Amino acid sequence: MTEMPESHPLGLNTSRIITFSDGVFAIVITLLVIDLKVPQIIAGDISAQLPGRLFDLWPKLLSYTLSFVIIGVYWVAHHHVFHYIVRVDRISLWLNIFFLMSVAFVPFPTALLGEYSNNRLAVIIYGVNVMATRLLLLALWLYSIYRHRLINPEMQPATLNRVTWLILIPVGIYLFAIGLSFLSTRISLALYFLVPLVFSVIPSRLNRGASL
Amino acid sequence: MTEMPESHPLGLNTSRIITFSDGVFAIVITLLVIDLKVPQIIAGDISAQLPGRLFDLWPKLLSYTLSFVIIGVYWVAHHHVFHYIVRVDRISLWLNIFFLMSVAFVPFPTALLGEYSNNRLAVIIYGVNVMATRLLLLALWLYSIYRHRLINPEMQPATLNRVTWLILIPVGIYLFAIGLSFLSTRISLALYFLVPLVFSVIPSRLNRGASL
Amino acid sequence: MTEMPESHPLGLNTSRIITFSDGVFAIVITLLVIDLKVPQIIAGDISAQLPGRLFDLWPKLLSYTLSFVIIGVYWVAHHHVFHYIVRVDRISLWLNIFFLMSVAFVPFPTALLGEYSNNRLAVIIYGVNVMATRLLLLALWLYSIYRHRLINPEMQPATLNRVTWLILIPVGIYLFAIGLSFLSTRISLALYFLVPLVFSVIPSRLNRGASL
Amino acid sequence: MTEMPESHPLGLNTSRIITFSDGVFAIVITLLVIDLKVPQIIAGDISAQLPGRLFDLWPKLLSYTLSFVIIGVYWVAHHHVFHYIVRVDRISLWLNIFFLMSVAFVPFPTALLGEYSNNRLAVIIYGVNVMATRLLLLALWLYSIYRHRLINPEMQPATLNRVTWLILIPVGIYLFAIGLSFLSTRISLALYFLVPLVFSVIPSRLNRGASL
Repeated sequence: MTEMPESHPLGLNTSRIITFSDGVFAIVITLLVIDLKVPQIIAGDISAQLPGRLFDLWPKLLSYTLSFVIIGVYWVAHHHVFHYIVRVDRISLWLNIFFLMSVAFVPFPTALLGEYSNNRLAVIIYGVNVMATRLLLLALWLYSIYRHRLINPEMQPATLNRVTWLILIPVGIYLFAIGLSFLSTRISLALYFLVPLVFSVIPSRLNRGASL
Repeated sequence: MTEMPESHPLGLNTSRIITFSDGVFAIVITLLVIDLKVPQIIAGDISAQLPGRLFDLWPKLLSYTLSFVIIGVYWVAHHHVFHYIVRVDRISLWLNIFFLMSVAFVPFPTALLGEYSNNRLAVIIYGVNVMATRLLLLALWLYSIYRHRLINPEMQPATLNRVTWLILIPVGIYLFAIGLSFLSTRISLALYFLVPLVFSVIPSRLNRGASL
Repeated sequence: MTEMPESHPLGLNTSRIITFSDGVFAIVITLLVIDLKVPQIIAGDISAQLPGRLFDLWPKLLSYTLSFVIIGVYWVAHHHVFHYIVRVDRISLWLNIFFLMSVAFVPFPTALLGEYSNNRLAVIIYGVNVMATRLLLLALWLYSIYRHRLINPEMQPATLNRVTWLILIPVGIYLFAIGLSFLSTRISLALYFLVPLVFSVIPSRLNRGASL
Repeated sequence: MTEMPESHPLGLNTSRIITFSDGVFAIVITLLVIDLKVPQIIAGDISAQLPGRLFDLWPKLLSYTLSFVIIGVYWVAHHHVFHYIVRVDRISLWLNIFFLMSVAFVPFPTALLGEYSNNRLAVIIYGVNVMATRLLLLALWLYSIYRHRLINPEMQPATLNRVTWLILIPVGIYLFAIGLSFLSTRISLALYFLVPLVFSVIPSRLNRGASL
């Protein structure tokens, strides 16, 4: 508990940044449930009306499921990045806050996409949001590993590079998908949904030992 | 902090999955309080109107209480499962995320049931949700114990089997209750409410040392 | 990680029950902020209308402040009780869940009181809620200390009794205040607001070393 | 687990106050996302209407971004203060609760400012809220360091004084900015937004090793 060295102003371990981030992730991931309201049937036959009224909720249900998976992807990625990062400083705290700000925004464009899935603007906004989230995670990662600033000095460059590429490749795919939206929003959507499946949910050579 | 072994890609302990899950549980369990709004009496005698207006809130109050107990059951079960699980990998992280997605959905069919308790569709939706939640917990459990993948190698098969059965039996009861809804929704409801009482809340031989 | 002894089925330490409870406390304590909506002024002079419109928010502001203090009182009390409790079992997990259910309900009667502070029913509902919350904490406490079941065996009976009385006395005061509401709701309110001040916020001989 | 010394009634470490505070910070920081609702277009050309409808959300988006940064500033500051504070007692628990109450209130005046940025009252309310938050953090800090009550006895007075000044200076700037609002609300706003940038986000000599 003495004066901290200047090069690592905070010299803090990662326990609190993780608690705080997990709190934000937990809230964001459950937030869209609030939008699922029980339909109120004022007059008429309940049995006849309820199926249709519940069916009308499907865009919200889809948004809920998609957001849960997307936020899940980022949580797994954050989990993995902080498996390597062992210290934080002021700059990495702020990069993490901006990353979380972008994560917390994801439910909005996801809901927008659930409502207006054929609209190019909705497709672009979603793409920009998920791409920005990844870029902020990349910034946090590159800042932390630069000259082994906030990671274990014994980490092999090969391992670090592998993680870097696993965050970077989806950024390229998202950029490509945003561009394609001017030709076909359907192809963009297909690419959007492939990225989390291939790079995070489905185990494969691409994500083995990486979770990104 | 060296390269992780391939067989356990993440090789992480369970501290972070638990923090994140507890956050989700805490949010979901308190979410329905938002629906309890103070009744606004615009004109007339407050003392005369307030009792009736407050009484009208009883379906929301019932949903709140039921959700709290049901989510509590799953929290206790999750608590217990992670008493045995000591490691996580990518697949178990995702099984846990899907389990939480199902848990976070519970307040919706519970509120639906509070509003339309005689409706067969509402009864079925609730049953499918709670059964699916248990099946996802079972998947997480079986994946983790298979060849002692993510548990302590010294754990006795008898203990593990016991936990397996304690998750599995209620799945059968829920399935039976869903089927019975075509005869009588009242019997289904009775079974739904017996499961948490017998298997979790009331201490008995069935749940001793198990919390499932 | 062997089979747990039968007398303490879970044999778990308190870390997870605390994380979960802190999550619930944190959500409940910030929940009423959602009700504070920025007033929308559609037509006319903003500078002239805004002060009045903001002033109209005072019952919500008062509810927010009161709830924050009351939930704070229970958090400090929970904090203190779990300073002595070192283990949990199935029954204490469930007593804690019911305690949290009662805590999470507090913002509703507080808001009710903010809106209808002269109404006897509102005064009684509030009193019953805060008294029930304390009774559930008392049940959790007495269950945990009975035959030193879930506490350190070396704890002195005098210390335990002191904590018991500090939870019990306010229960009596609340019961007295509820009864007085049939004579004067103002006196009931005064007693309601004195309890947290005297027993928790203001340091005194009554709460020294106790936080209840 | 014996009777605690009278001078430090709780004698607790800071782990639980940090978990609870991080929970509150996480909820408050993500709360404003709830206000971002997908615009419902009932009739007419979606492609023609959506850009305008989304553009209308900009004050809410601005509030969201600003709140995230401001709450982030206080989280970083709280993080740093509890890097030095190693114990808590009843009084510091309550000072922390009142600090969190003030933090949780920040999204409201921020949203007010997003809506009525030219209104002097809105400018003053915002300034008073952020100043009060800092004063409560200062009270918590001064109480904790007084006679090294709740900090490591070996801490150097120079380090402590430095932290004190870094919390105190922005209080002075906010007070100055509130006064200036009677001349020009624009200058007040400029000062409001400079404080977090200079004292927290942008690394500089002012905040090196301090995070306040």
